[in-house]
Amino acid sequence: MAGNSYGKIFRVTTWGESHGTAVGAVVDGCPPNIVIDPDFLNKEMSRRRPGQGGASSPRKESDKVEILSGVFTPPNENLPRTTGTPISLVIYNEDAHSKSYDHLREIYRPGHGDITYHQKFGIRDHRGGGRASARETAARVAAGAIAKLVLSAYGIKTVAYTAALGGIKVEKYRAEEITQNIYYAPDNDAAARMEERVQEVRAAGDTLGGLVEIRVNGCIAGLGEPVFDKLEADLAHGLMSIGAVKGVEVGAGFLVADMLGSENNDQIGSDGYLSNNAGGILAGISNGDEIILRVAVKPIPSIAQTQKTINQKGEEVTIAIGGRHDISAIPRIIPVCEAMVNLTLADHLLRQRAMDHGSSF
Amino acid sequence: MAGNSYGKIFRVTTWGESHGTAVGAVVDGCPPNIVIDPDFLNKEMSRRRPGQGGASSPRKESDKVEILSGVFTPPNENLPRTTGTPISLVIYNEDAHSKSYDHLREIYRPGHGDITYHQKFGIRDHRGGGRASARETAARVAAGAIAKLVLSAYGIKTVAYTAALGGIKVEKYRAEEITQNIYYAPDNDAAARMEERVQEVRAAGDTLGGLVEIRVNGCIAGLGEPVFDKLEADLAHGLMSIGAVKGVEVGAGFLVADMLGSENNDQIGSDGYLSNNAGGILAGISNGDEIILRVAVKPIPSIAQTQKTINQKGEEVTIAIGGRHDISAIPRIIPVCEAMVNLTLADHLLRQRAMDHGSSF
Amino acid sequence: MAGNSYGKIFRVTTWGESHGTAVGAVVDGCPPNIVIDPDFLNKEMSRRRPGQGGASSPRKESDKVEILSGVFTPPNENLPRTTGTPISLVIYNEDAHSKSYDHLREIYRPGHGDITYHQKFGIRDHRGGGRASARETAARVAAGAIAKLVLSAYGIKTVAYTAALGGIKVEKYRAEEITQNIYYAPDNDAAARMEERVQEVRAAGDTLGGLVEIRVNGCIAGLGEPVFDKLEADLAHGLMSIGAVKGVEVGAGFLVADMLGSENNDQIGSDGYLSNNAGGILAGISNGDEIILRVAVKPIPSIAQTQKTINQKGEEVTIAIGGRHDISAIPRIIPVCEAMVNLTLADHLLRQRAMDHGSSF
Amino acid sequence: MAGNSYGKIFRVTTWGESHGTAVGAVVDGCPPNIVIDPDFLNKEMSRRRPGQGGASSPRKESDKVEILSGVFTPPNENLPRTTGTPISLVIYNEDAHSKSYDHLREIYRPGHGDITYHQKFGIRDHRGGGRASARETAARVAAGAIAKLVLSAYGIKTVAYTAALGGIKVEKYRAEEITQNIYYAPDNDAAARMEERVQEVRAAGDTLGGLVEIRVNGCIAGLGEPVFDKLEADLAHGLMSIGAVKGVEVGAGFLVADMLGSENNDQIGSDGYLSNNAGGILAGISNGDEIILRVAVKPIPSIAQTQKTINQKGEEVTIAIGGRHDISAIPRIIPVCEAMVNLTLADHLLRQRAMDHGSSF
Repeated sequence: MAGNSYGKIFRVTTWGESHGTAVGAVVDGCPPNIVIDPDFLNKEMSRRRPGQGGASSPRKESDKVEILSGVFTPPNENLPRTTGTPISLVIYNEDAHSKSYDHLREIYRPGHGDITYHQKFGIRDHRGGGRASARETAARVAAGAIAKLVLSAYGIKTVAYTAALGGIKVEKYRAEEITQNIYYAPDNDAAARMEERVQEVRAAGDTLGGLVEIRVNGCIAGLGEPVFDKLEADLAHGLMSIGAVKGVEVGAGFLVADMLGSENNDQIGSDGYLSNNAGGILAGISNGDEIILRVAVKPIPSIAQTQKTINQKGEEVTIAIGGRHDISAIPRIIPVCEAMVNLTLADHLLRQRAMDHGSSF
Repeated sequence: MAGNSYGKIFRVTTWGESHGTAVGAVVDGCPPNIVIDPDFLNKEMSRRRPGQGGASSPRKESDKVEILSGVFTPPNENLPRTTGTPISLVIYNEDAHSKSYDHLREIYRPGHGDITYHQKFGIRDHRGGGRASARETAARVAAGAIAKLVLSAYGIKTVAYTAALGGIKVEKYRAEEITQNIYYAPDNDAAARMEERVQEVRAAGDTLGGLVEIRVNGCIAGLGEPVFDKLEADLAHGLMSIGAVKGVEVGAGFLVADMLGSENNDQIGSDGYLSNNAGGILAGISNGDEIILRVAVKPIPSIAQTQKTINQKGEEVTIAIGGRHDISAIPRIIPVCEAMVNLTLADHLLRQRAMDHGSSF
Repeated sequence: MAGNSYGKIFRVTTWGESHGTAVGAVVDGCPPNIVIDPDFLNKEMSRRRPGQGGASSPRKESDKVEILSGVFTPPNENLPRTTGTPISLVIYNEDAHSKSYDHLREIYRPGHGDITYHQKFGIRDHRGGGRASARETAARVAAGAIAKLVLSAYGIKTVAYTAALGGIKVEKYRAEEITQNIYYAPDNDAAARMEERVQEVRAAGDTLGGLVEIRVNGCIAGLGEPVFDKLEADLAHGLMSIGAVKGVEVGAGFLVADMLGSENNDQIGSDGYLSNNAGGILAGISNGDEIILRVAVKPIPSIAQTQKTINQKGEEVTIAIGGRHDISAIPRIIPVCEAMVNLTLADHLLRQRAMDHGSSF
Repeated sequence: MAGNSYGKIFRVTTWGESHGTAVGAVVDGCPPNIVIDPDFLNKEMSRRRPGQGGASSPRKESDKVEILSGVFTPPNENLPRTTGTPISLVIYNEDAHSKSYDHLREIYRPGHGDITYHQKFGIRDHRGGGRASARETAARVAAGAIAKLVLSAYGIKTVAYTAALGGIKVEKYRAEEITQNIYYAPDNDAAARMEERVQEVRAAGDTLGGLVEIRVNGCIAGLGEPVFDKLEADLAHGLMSIGAVKGVEVGAGFLVADMLGSENNDQIGSDGYLSNNAGGILAGISNGDEIILRVAVKPIPSIAQTQKTINQKGEEVTIAIGGRHDISAIPRIIPVCEAMVNLTLADHLLRQRAMDHGSSF
């Protein structure tokens, strides 16, 4: 009920605050016998890590994941396998400067959850945003890495990348360039201009929004559970649950508003669909084509410029937020988007296995 | 698991196919003692009914709801009240011409779920789209009417309206005009132009997409369950579960991609927020301000023009879809959007009641 | 949350009151392509029907089930198949004498939920017990019949029977005799003595309790989800959710309290277990052996004898309950016990399919 | 789906294996602002700890709980309070002798889950029973302690105690004696005889079963969600999910099988019920009276005597289990029973708060 779990069969529960002891996740419902390479897990983590330069915060976190349960290394094997029991993942907080938040104890930062957490719970951990901090997403990436392994056994592969940052859109899609620049853009030239824009805005004490695009290849047809758990509905749920995301679209997305049926319909040939406005999902069920999603990412609300706000007594005050903050949620949000898509797909894969119309019936 | 239920505490399960006996919903988790006026229910239904002229299908359905359980009229009262037990709602199908679908038994219509339902389930009810038909949303509107009553006890009021149709955007927001034109547009002049566009496109055997906007007023602060069931995440889930919806955004939505933090942040004064880019939701929790959502609606895929497709054997064929179809999901989708928002909010209202930090602790 | 649903993947939601229009169930999560013979469904229903003589109420209900959705008869087939979409089942109430309950509108019957429903909900449908009536179990039996078909595809077969009634225990187990007497006892001689006891107690205006035993044969090993959803935990949940049940045990049950480990342990040979004190479930997981369960059934609380109670104002009154009541929940509870076991097993079967450690990983 | 979570609103997920790094629990859905005294938590833990003499294993575990998230100590307060976010609890394993299980790697111990875990998952952590070990219940006790605090804010108090051990029944109920003997029996004399019996059986290399009784006082009327989540159904689920429990009964329990309606019905006076055969629950809803439950506890399956079994190849072998084992699950199971009852009640308390028919409707 309290919303810290995601997924129905492949189910992850995250916990932890920005400046508490640790953040973590419990993954329940992972099938047994999947090999988990701890190095793979930590490589996945490193993509979300702060201190990557560019738009990232200089906060230093090694973000190493420890696996406390749910795996077992069989005799004569070198790597642990999942056992079908819950996998407990922990990431200790290392570089948490709680003291630097003392002055914020009684002030609500604009654009942050300080005020709404207080309204909802009547108490809040003000240190670094507490539970509302993006630090929580480290646990999602760890859990998402397990989901990625489940999907890869079926040949399903998700890749997210920057489609725009600070008004600069990528102009081409070169998959190989995504990992060649610090903005995970499929266009190195655009990435270079993004870097200029970031430096400019950093100097101005301001922050930037952008767009992230996610593509899934190799997704089998048949995933998605109409009518309420249509695949795009659950994907939208997962992606919109990321703090900075304010919009989600699938396939042609908002462009469909201006299209005719004859333009938007994906006609079908014997070799497959003749277009992909649907973004790989038809009537809530994957159709085997590439799944394409796009999300709008708001600018980081912690800015150095002076803003009007109120304190806990309701008095008007001003605030200028220093400290170690990202200039944009991009690119660190990219592995988080991938994680949410992978968690959603792994769950739907298992849901479909349960209902499969195989030879048994 | 199979996705025909929505909500966790206030929980609706819908059932039924387009050309079966009936469609219906069971609402479980509705608090007791709420007066249900059957006339109110049927008035809500009439807004989604076909045969309203304009872009609507001429199929005739009275769409009268019967309440089979969960209510009781106390002695000396005239209207039934909810008893806290499940409310079973049934809407019989009346004007279902199954025969007119015989020629589609083995053909997959482009843009429809014919093919994906077959891939997923290995069997499909081809008559009128079966479960994938928009007819299913009649049950959502009936259940949403109950949710509306729950919310109105707290002073929460949702209104949806057409923001664009066939490329024609509304240019002003006059709340009173929404019910003065058949497109539920807050701008009668735009509505007139929409009607022209609809007639034009109908003549061409084509269909139209558009935009729907939803506003919620009077929503108390504190609704939403971070981190995964943020209010906007559940709202996106609900709205994206409507067949024709391909994109969802909250507040400034996709515009945030181009904004600076200093532009996007809603600063706060002692009388409230100085802007509302957040769309009434901060860190996944309602902030007491107006909630604003927008969805992209794809054109109806059933078009009279000839399209390429395949049949169940995988052979290429062409198809031109006659019959009684809407030209656009707008305006009939409007009460469905309202229903999904109301179902989501009613659920979160009850979830918050469970966790309330009242005097008991 | 409101507890009218059962099961996680194979999920049934029941609705309806004793003297409302109908009772019914929605089964969501039933795999597609299962043939549903309406005659089979109604034959299942007939075992729970009132008016069977013996201890049964003379209330006349045909208890015919209508299937409103979720099935489709393919061309060239005679019987409907499940389509993977929700199956809506309705059983209309026919012989509901609401007027005969008018005098109970303000009195709380001892042993009934009248008082607790009022305390919980602040309103109650007093007619025939409303939602608390055993009539609700008709919907369980209908849904359980669908579950039975799912299980039979895997060769799993459940049989329940009377183990004791009014202090008379069965003395032998002859499977073929279960359907030869109106008490569904595997011992016709005991059944004859039960009938005498029932007539005796009926004359005295009193009612009887008893024991029901349930056996499952052919259950594959591996069902059950430790640690909280152990197979026996979910079975106990399901059985204890039947109104009259006050105790549940598995295998040796309460006898284990007096046993030594060396007596209770089921040793294992190459052909299987050497005993079955575990009742077919080990560490929460089916072990392939026969599953054995036993439930205690309380006497029907509606008795003709005068009892002390209070009315809604809290005043002391006396009550003697006439009308058409069963003398014992046995035998009509027997198909309900079977239904709860079958619903539980069908759910666990699908849960196990989702997690199967097959060749994919 | 995988069954490692319990509760719907107050929801606990446990994780961890007997000989892994740690066991733990995440409690999601705990209301905010509850003071958590770490000393109280650890005092609760100490009751389940091994090494208490009597029937307990001499394994040494301090069983200290660490709280990793979900609490915050407000300025000017000394103890942490819950914040409404998930509470992560960890208990490190200290005295885990994995090597001593090496010889069991390929043998299935009778009465243990070795074989069924292998059948279900295709892989198993054989060390100390892995996930099937009673060690997992340490996490339940930790989570149950949080539930106890929630309940105590409402004046609800649960106490469990030994009703029988090895055939020796308690003959009187003296609440104050429960904590005066190492068997938590409300009868010091019986406890002394139990101790003799334990020593006798320990010498014989055997183990003992028993009965635990649980009473809840101060429970408000109205908890329980018919029809499937009746209070006794969820309590039975929770209690039967404890490894050693083979039977559960409420109130008069299995005795009802032999009772007449006129004996079993609890008549009602203006001061309350005149008897309590119902055990405080009527039609699935608490009636305000004392809740009484009883569970049958099987003997510990690890016995020193030689038993027949098979190995992973299916070959017949014999086994005699040495090592540090309890002679009976009693008394260490007693706080576990309390925990399961408290977790169930806390969940139902919050479920009822959500549905409350208060002044709002």
